[in-house]
Amino acid sequence: MQEFQIDPRLERDSMAIADLGLCQLRLMRDARWPWLLAVPQRAGVEEMFDLAPLDQTMLTFEVNEAAKALKTVTGANKINVAAIGNMVRQLHVHVVARFEGDANWPGPIWGYGTREPRSDDDCAALARKIAEAMA
Amino acid sequence: MQEFQIDPRLERDSMAIADLGLCQLRLMRDARWPWLLAVPQRAGVEEMFDLAPLDQTMLTFEVNEAAKALKTVTGANKINVAAIGNMVRQLHVHVVARFEGDANWPGPIWGYGTREPRSDDDCAALARKIAEAMA
Repeated sequence: MQEFQIDPRLERDSMAIADLGLCQLRLMRDARWPWLLAVPQRAGVEEMFDLAPLDQTMLTFEVNEAAKALKTVTGANKINVAAIGNMVRQLHVHVVARFEGDANWPGPIWGYGTREPRSDDDCAALARKIAEAMA
Repeated sequence: MQEFQIDPRLERDSMAIADLGLCQLRLMRDARWPWLLAVPQRAGVEEMFDLAPLDQTMLTFEVNEAAKALKTVTGANKINVAAIGNMVRQLHVHVVARFEGDANWPGPIWGYGTREPRSDDDCAALARKIAEAMA
């Protein structure tokens, strides 16, 4: 049995902020948008339909809890949720807070422009607020 | 109680191909990618977390069944699943078959280029294959 290990690109671009049960919840190190990743801790899974049925339900629950918390914390106009994975195949779900007038609004964030670093302090403060909102 | 009505832009850009229980399954009239929409038939819902818990689970089940069928029918390299809604706020989940080298691969499809019409015959043939794969 293969053991779950986070993809090195996801690890480099984001920091772990919570263990939700099924998913590792991560915060992208990008200042342009408040941007979470939910990564199911299951080895070798690329598509949501490859998860066991109970895991699919857990993923939905955890993603929606994270999305609601992100909306509460940021006051976003819209939450964008997506499992794309064209580049990093390890299943990961993006949960992004969008605001009218933000970078590339109303277009998608993926593949747009270049990353703007988010400081460790800023990451930690946002992570703490999200954890509080999910508690 | 408000009654569900499909958003006029979704209605114009796609055709209904199945009623899945919670969702209307629709096929986008765009030849660039095999592209489905799952639209929960609930009035006034913009975010997945606004759905009742059982509806959230149903949505996951229906989206994943559609995604699996789309993968089977098309042989896609990757299925992209997303609830974005920055422009059309009525909750709708995109389920898109992606191929290495397709339009904007490996970038996202949303907001990219201009629609290429898919003929009614081609829509009907694809819809029939998807319905068979989901049966």
